[in-house]
Amino acid sequence: MIANSIIPVLINGTPEDRVSSLDRGLMYGDGLFETLAVMDGEPVFWSRHMTRLQAGCERLGIPSVDADRLADEARGLLQDTDRCVLKIIVTRGTGGRGYRTPPNPQPTRIIQRHPWPDYPACYDEQGVNVRLCEQRLGFNPLLAGIKHLNRLEQVLARQEWTDPDIMEGLMADSKGNLIEGTMSNLFVVQDQVLTTPDLGRCGVTGVIRAVVMELAGELALQVAVRDLGMTALLEADEVFLTNSVIGIWPVVRLGEHTWQKGGTTQQLQQRLVDLHQEGKRRQQR
Amino acid sequence: MIANSIIPVLINGTPEDRVSSLDRGLMYGDGLFETLAVMDGEPVFWSRHMTRLQAGCERLGIPSVDADRLADEARGLLQDTDRCVLKIIVTRGTGGRGYRTPPNPQPTRIIQRHPWPDYPACYDEQGVNVRLCEQRLGFNPLLAGIKHLNRLEQVLARQEWTDPDIMEGLMADSKGNLIEGTMSNLFVVQDQVLTTPDLGRCGVTGVIRAVVMELAGELALQVAVRDLGMTALLEADEVFLTNSVIGIWPVVRLGEHTWQKGGTTQQLQQRLVDLHQEGKRRQQR
Repeated sequence: MIANSIIPVLINGTPEDRVSSLDRGLMYGDGLFETLAVMDGEPVFWSRHMTRLQAGCERLGIPSVDADRLADEARGLLQDTDRCVLKIIVTRGTGGRGYRTPPNPQPTRIIQRHPWPDYPACYDEQGVNVRLCEQRLGFNPLLAGIKHLNRLEQVLARQEWTDPDIMEGLMADSKGNLIEGTMSNLFVVQDQVLTTPDLGRCGVTGVIRAVVMELAGELALQVAVRDLGMTALLEADEVFLTNSVIGIWPVVRLGEHTWQKGGTTQQLQQRLVDLHQEGKRRQQR
Repeated sequence: MIANSIIPVLINGTPEDRVSSLDRGLMYGDGLFETLAVMDGEPVFWSRHMTRLQAGCERLGIPSVDADRLADEARGLLQDTDRCVLKIIVTRGTGGRGYRTPPNPQPTRIIQRHPWPDYPACYDEQGVNVRLCEQRLGFNPLLAGIKHLNRLEQVLARQEWTDPDIMEGLMADSKGNLIEGTMSNLFVVQDQVLTTPDLGRCGVTGVIRAVVMELAGELALQVAVRDLGMTALLEADEVFLTNSVIGIWPVVRLGEHTWQKGGTTQQLQQRLVDLHQEGKRRQQR
């Protein structure tokens, strides 16, 4: 179904779906993206996504994006849409000479409206199976954290399996520390401590990751951001994944090892749903 | 001048310059490219570039490109052109779900004709100054060697300097071994040994790098492919850079350290020019 859908796209505010082949986003992956859940017609955690996008622009030296204009454009694309996925891409535009960037870049803004993926509700409730990917994440402190367009590591990792019962692959860095899933962040819970890997050398600092770390305080959980090895993963009481579209997925199996969906994961899921409801109520006022 | 030029482009054989914003080349850098020198109307080392492109396709799981069709298309774009740079981009095309690749990808072929950069001849003769970049190359054995579209490390490295007297930046890996320049491969000569860094964990295996390694045999040079540290670089008798457009550039300065352009570099430059001439004569027969 998705393959035949027409994906509505705005490029620099104009309804069209093509960009120059000279765009540095294509030539070098010289740009950033955000993937937002849209619920009840509203992009969820919009301002957090904009903050990360701006941080990425700053890191790459791309002029900052006018978030109000982007919001107007997104609103136009979301008319009469209740639930979908909004993908925003910002590239450095065309120009420069080889890798050298142009002195006055004119960024390209792309907004795409994708269908909501409709994952079965049982993933939330009963959890998902994961695997460990062979593909590692290279150290790159200057690119770590931001959601840039250089995603071949994730593409290669996702090519490692076709089993439809495995919903995500965990990725380690070149030293063997677990970092994240191909499309999600990773958390483990043990002894009332919520641990998520340090993303200072690789990985993407997910918006829901940040939300979950904030919610943890309300549940009197201690939060630890540190290196996470395989042993700590296997010994954890609870394991879960986060991203903007899936929210929170409990992890229940990796190979032969199983975990139960735990009470902490369930509480965090509930608080996340509550946050969405609160956001909705605020918008309705 | 370059900024105002119109760059002729063929996309899948059609004279147009735009691609879908859903192309995985843009969304994830999911593709490859080749940059070829065109001299006397002919792409130089065409078959070597095609071999590397096919190796890259194989590594990424992109269907192999029909090199004959690509050659026909390139020929069409090069009519009445004596000297230019040909850039060929092959992406996985559109489709798939997130990072997951489509089962039957339809690759996108992009051929761009760029103006010849007209570097001053004195770079060949007197050599160039280089710097050492802060930006490191992350380890990524599965991506090492191929010329893929994830080039943010190079873009960030090239942003580190604006001094027009510095023509290239050398890049080290995360352990501090020198790997290559932002747009070139690195060689050092000492005691009749030609050394170039091992590219098994990061870096691009340049076409001219391979040619130079072959030519070295004719000059009775021993060739070593191994880790190259800063000390070995500074102690070298000769240092030079290679790529398809610059050919061979002697390196004469890094910070306070200077090298002379040496006899070996000069001999290799001459042999490379001879090869071009031989190629031309073969085409004329």
